[in-house]
Amino acid sequence: MTNYPERTIEVSFTPLLFHLHKKENSIVVIVDILRATTAICTAFANGVNHIIPVASIEEAKKYKKKGYLVAGERDGVVLDGADFGNSPFNFTKENVNDRIFVITTTNGTQAIEMARDCSKVAIGSFLNISSLCNWLAEKNENIIILCAGWKNRFNLEDTIFAGAMIENLLSNKKINLKLNCDSAMASLDLWNVAKKDLIGYVQKFAHRERLRKLGLDDVIEYCFTKDVTEIIPVLDGDKLVKLK
Amino acid sequence: MTNYPERTIEVSFTPLLFHLHKKENSIVVIVDILRATTAICTAFANGVNHIIPVASIEEAKKYKKKGYLVAGERDGVVLDGADFGNSPFNFTKENVNDRIFVITTTNGTQAIEMARDCSKVAIGSFLNISSLCNWLAEKNENIIILCAGWKNRFNLEDTIFAGAMIENLLSNKKINLKLNCDSAMASLDLWNVAKKDLIGYVQKFAHRERLRKLGLDDVIEYCFTKDVTEIIPVLDGDKLVKLK
Repeated sequence: MTNYPERTIEVSFTPLLFHLHKKENSIVVIVDILRATTAICTAFANGVNHIIPVASIEEAKKYKKKGYLVAGERDGVVLDGADFGNSPFNFTKENVNDRIFVITTTNGTQAIEMARDCSKVAIGSFLNISSLCNWLAEKNENIIILCAGWKNRFNLEDTIFAGAMIENLLSNKKINLKLNCDSAMASLDLWNVAKKDLIGYVQKFAHRERLRKLGLDDVIEYCFTKDVTEIIPVLDGDKLVKLK
Repeated sequence: MTNYPERTIEVSFTPLLFHLHKKENSIVVIVDILRATTAICTAFANGVNHIIPVASIEEAKKYKKKGYLVAGERDGVVLDGADFGNSPFNFTKENVNDRIFVITTTNGTQAIEMARDCSKVAIGSFLNISSLCNWLAEKNENIIILCAGWKNRFNLEDTIFAGAMIENLLSNKKINLKLNCDSAMASLDLWNVAKKDLIGYVQKFAHRERLRKLGLDDVIEYCFTKDVTEIIPVLDGDKLVKLK
């Protein structure tokens, strides 16, 4: 028994299902483990001033013309004219410290766009999972985890991250969490399967096969590394800023 | 190694995601374990002549006026004016043998409606799982499992059934199945978690809580019983008929 008010946690497996979730009194956590939200957390860990996420290539190009630094990718390939793609390894201290950049990706920035009207939007990845969950536990809002998926499809990496968050939150005595959403239950079950051999589990993903074809699988291990930073990026108007 | 041509199997977790799957050269299996597709399989096992699935209440009412027997439900509650709801226990030999009836349900008949343009559509449930999988293995088409879900949301019961089908098909030496869809992998993993204590697992579903509130959980065990019938209902124009 606990005296804390009951709160719900739901998981939207893809942006296409997000409208089915009630947004009132909810914090939305955006997840795109491979790789947008991992890259964003890395950039903040390395001192970025703020990030402007945009959904379309056209918007990114407009910012580029104005002289902004642009990170852009579609289907894992760096956008023509962009300064770099969305591999987290691009977001080094040298590249981002004290700077502002614009980011557009295949899935992650689309998901951010969908959540723009919600009152609180945070960016989640394994890199900031404990700090993020501790912060969520302190709040009074319900939680919706919005998985970016892959082109509106379900993907395993975002889902097992949702499960890892739920495991963390369920073990936190400050939060009285009601698990009454089949997607959330499935995420937790899949995380429990995956965590026994996380990298081995990731090997079998459709998406990983896609990444391997593009020669990008050097980031896999990094993207599943917990607690590299305590920073929680949050949406503030058009910008992603460091939560204070 | 096998000489059989490679075939894919994909799972659409809800009708909202179905458009993301390529339908060419595919057999679509409709799944609504609680309870439409279980009820349909029961009706065929008990000698129904054929079934007319309709998506809307209005269509069902039109058929009722013409004198048809109508099974109708929304949110688990029998439709006003319908002869019965969609509990499989209504589809007894006495009620359905040699008869025709019209069915409309919250989720299942909507999913059938979505698949209407596909060349081959079959109805799946635990009641006919082995027969269905043996038939699928004999074909040359790819397979898409369309879970009816709950009001366009993901649900666990349809998903673990998809996983049970995939387990069955992977063990069949006549089919060379390529598992390259994250939804299919997740379904199989969830089935492997669930099957250790199937009814216990089902207890935790959001949907089951909903069913319990409606006093309908007497059907749960029945809906997870394998191989009650060998009949495979398939869509033939506007009708569901017994595959010959």
